[in-house]
Amino acid sequence: MTNTPEDRTLHLNAFLMPIGHHEAAWRLPESDPNANLDIGHYISLAQTAERGKFDSVFLADSPVLMGVPERRPSGKLEPTIILTAIGAATSKIGLIATASTSYNEPYNLARRFASLDIVSGGRAGWNIVTTAGDDAARNFGLDGVPAHKTRYQRAAEFVEVSTKLWDSWEDDAIVADKESAVHSDSAKVHRFDHDGEFFKVAGPLNVPRSPQGYPLLVQAGSSENGKDFAALYSEAIFTAQPTFEEGKAFYDDVKDRVAKVGRNPDQVLILPGIVPVIGDTEEHARELDAELARLISPEYARAQLAERFGLAPEELDLDRELPEDLPSEDEIEGAKSRYTLIVQLARRENLTVRELIARLGGGRGHRTFAGTAEQVADTIEHWFRSGAADGFNIMPAVLPSGLELFVDRVVPILQERGLFRTDYTETTLRGHYGLPRPDNQFVVDANIRVAASAT
Amino acid sequence: MTNTPEDRTLHLNAFLMPIGHHEAAWRLPESDPNANLDIGHYISLAQTAERGKFDSVFLADSPVLMGVPERRPSGKLEPTIILTAIGAATSKIGLIATASTSYNEPYNLARRFASLDIVSGGRAGWNIVTTAGDDAARNFGLDGVPAHKTRYQRAAEFVEVSTKLWDSWEDDAIVADKESAVHSDSAKVHRFDHDGEFFKVAGPLNVPRSPQGYPLLVQAGSSENGKDFAALYSEAIFTAQPTFEEGKAFYDDVKDRVAKVGRNPDQVLILPGIVPVIGDTEEHARELDAELARLISPEYARAQLAERFGLAPEELDLDRELPEDLPSEDEIEGAKSRYTLIVQLARRENLTVRELIARLGGGRGHRTFAGTAEQVADTIEHWFRSGAADGFNIMPAVLPSGLELFVDRVVPILQERGLFRTDYTETTLRGHYGLPRPDNQFVVDANIRVAASAT
Repeated sequence: MTNTPEDRTLHLNAFLMPIGHHEAAWRLPESDPNANLDIGHYISLAQTAERGKFDSVFLADSPVLMGVPERRPSGKLEPTIILTAIGAATSKIGLIATASTSYNEPYNLARRFASLDIVSGGRAGWNIVTTAGDDAARNFGLDGVPAHKTRYQRAAEFVEVSTKLWDSWEDDAIVADKESAVHSDSAKVHRFDHDGEFFKVAGPLNVPRSPQGYPLLVQAGSSENGKDFAALYSEAIFTAQPTFEEGKAFYDDVKDRVAKVGRNPDQVLILPGIVPVIGDTEEHARELDAELARLISPEYARAQLAERFGLAPEELDLDRELPEDLPSEDEIEGAKSRYTLIVQLARRENLTVRELIARLGGGRGHRTFAGTAEQVADTIEHWFRSGAADGFNIMPAVLPSGLELFVDRVVPILQERGLFRTDYTETTLRGHYGLPRPDNQFVVDANIRVAASAT
Repeated sequence: MTNTPEDRTLHLNAFLMPIGHHEAAWRLPESDPNANLDIGHYISLAQTAERGKFDSVFLADSPVLMGVPERRPSGKLEPTIILTAIGAATSKIGLIATASTSYNEPYNLARRFASLDIVSGGRAGWNIVTTAGDDAARNFGLDGVPAHKTRYQRAAEFVEVSTKLWDSWEDDAIVADKESAVHSDSAKVHRFDHDGEFFKVAGPLNVPRSPQGYPLLVQAGSSENGKDFAALYSEAIFTAQPTFEEGKAFYDDVKDRVAKVGRNPDQVLILPGIVPVIGDTEEHARELDAELARLISPEYARAQLAERFGLAPEELDLDRELPEDLPSEDEIEGAKSRYTLIVQLARRENLTVRELIARLGGGRGHRTFAGTAEQVADTIEHWFRSGAADGFNIMPAVLPSGLELFVDRVVPILQERGLFRTDYTETTLRGHYGLPRPDNQFVVDANIRVAASAT
């Protein structure tokens, strides 16, 4: 957009799917199939990413058991627990956790992120999700998932309440004057009595304002509702963009939406996902990719694909293309934009179900890329310099090896080309992303009150 | 009860109120008044307790800003965040967090505790509370706190749902067979479709069964509802007992209730709180106690006491006894047993409001004890050997100094007397407390099904 390549810095986030983003990664001989439950494994991954000067690590999440237990490791430790442990074993890298606005209470979640921001010295980020799927809803008193639009309305109010909670202590509320026996100044600790459509929350939070003011706000939905939400609230956006053209169109679309709501497009970073499968040669990378595809169990994958389409597994023939009469995105109450992306990918390349499964196994619709370190760096540079990305969400197919290869081989190339930092210059997550610390809405209001009373 | 002194082991839990249990502790010259927000401070306290071979550390909690911000440090980091960081910096000591059944969803909370149990290697405990007070309710969509009885009914169902979630993966559900592409056995991962008065939860949890099966279940309410709840569900009970006679009566009462519901009284440990103020001499200890009392700000304390009684602050005269016509426990929807305990203490000793405030400032109704290390050890031994306690909840008036003094001076005396361990012999929290790992309800059911189908 308005930025020239010269004054922009590339940003890299390590998206940690425990044993790798490829669903069959756990079956490789070198993989620990229970690493998803090993906190030492996560800490080691984050330390590798910090060695590579990554901006952040990121954990996806949903409060439900996903997929068939046979198919792959499905146990998921709660993300703020993992990130707290990672925070204690690292000192600079940002810590981004996914959490649902549909199945949490703002007071509890805002408090947990404020606590993580404090214990990590200002490194917390929140990937705001509305959580698709009936199965998750059934763990929270509902028979099925609320409508897509309703979920986004609740998400907007959830974020509004959360910022009120995070701002409820002004930064200088703590006095700590032992002599006069005044610990904090009540006039700077705000009860706000929010009373909205979804939430009624009095406040204040029982945690003072954190180093970053509040966690970095991240969003990953790319539907129309998702993009509008992102334009209003997000500071960083994770997105799945399988081709450069689609990535560029998404980038321009979202930056336009950001400008239209009166925010600065430079302060909303767009980070598409990339699944790099790195080899010494291109041929070696393709062999690794093919080996992973061979390890996918097609029956389980077909069942899950069928569920996404609202079909019975036997309605999908492994050796034929997708049926013609699939539902439109409007009829899907799940992960809408991901649904469309998968259908388009299959149609565009005339893939059989078996071929589609192989392609999705690696990146679930994200751009997968098998090649040398140089080729991966070239792709990243191309997208970045051409205004299709402000950085990338790095999603190694196999962990820890894929992240180690990226850090040891790709990062040095990006650094040599002057695209990426050679060391951290900031201490907070917003600092790494070059974003300002948010103002406190209650202080602003107080100034207005003072100004008004003076006239 | 049935135990003889010979085969019993004393248990010690460190109740970490960040700057000490005395409300004026932050005003002492040596205190860091913002240590409540310093994760390094908590870690250091836990390491001291682990050096003293304590069974566990414990954090109280409520999802609300408590009291007047002027009065004392009121910011509270979320307990499972603190305990995760502590867990990473210790290896043996148990980690007990308070969490509310009134203001959480079972799926989220069960998952967080399962995650903490896994990352800490089996050291998690949950202090189950129903959360008193209208102010907390107003952070969760309500105008006032639900009735005491309703809260306990919800708590019972919450625990029932939580154990279903924790048991939803059988211990041997994970197969991790790379060759046959079977990660886990669906037949041992249970969806249970709980549909009760307060909760509707399908399950299974998205976290496999944790090292302890599930966290140690702790309870701290001492009302009639609280004692009945404890008899049914608790494995350890924290309680405030200001005199030996009251402590002995409570101990016998609860152990009887446990036996009556068919549980083994030896497997429910009762740990009264004690606020030790330790000095080189008894006189020195009393001076420290008096200094702390002088540092209490009486106006704030009076306001909070008045709120507990449902009165305006000016209805309490600092230099007179409590009014005659206070409400009965039945009329209080708050912390019932604590209310009665405070009124009884004031009446029994004919305390003025000012004197009562000084007494409560130290321990909020818990037994405070100013004396030498030898005297503290004598008290502990007396209660333990006489069947009034299975151990103690150690609540130092000032931290870190109070815990260091206890570990360096009182613990060695208890060890010399053969009352307390000289090193850890177990690795889990239940192990330290001498309690068995719980059976999995779904495995039991499966066996019954097998037996039934065989007849």
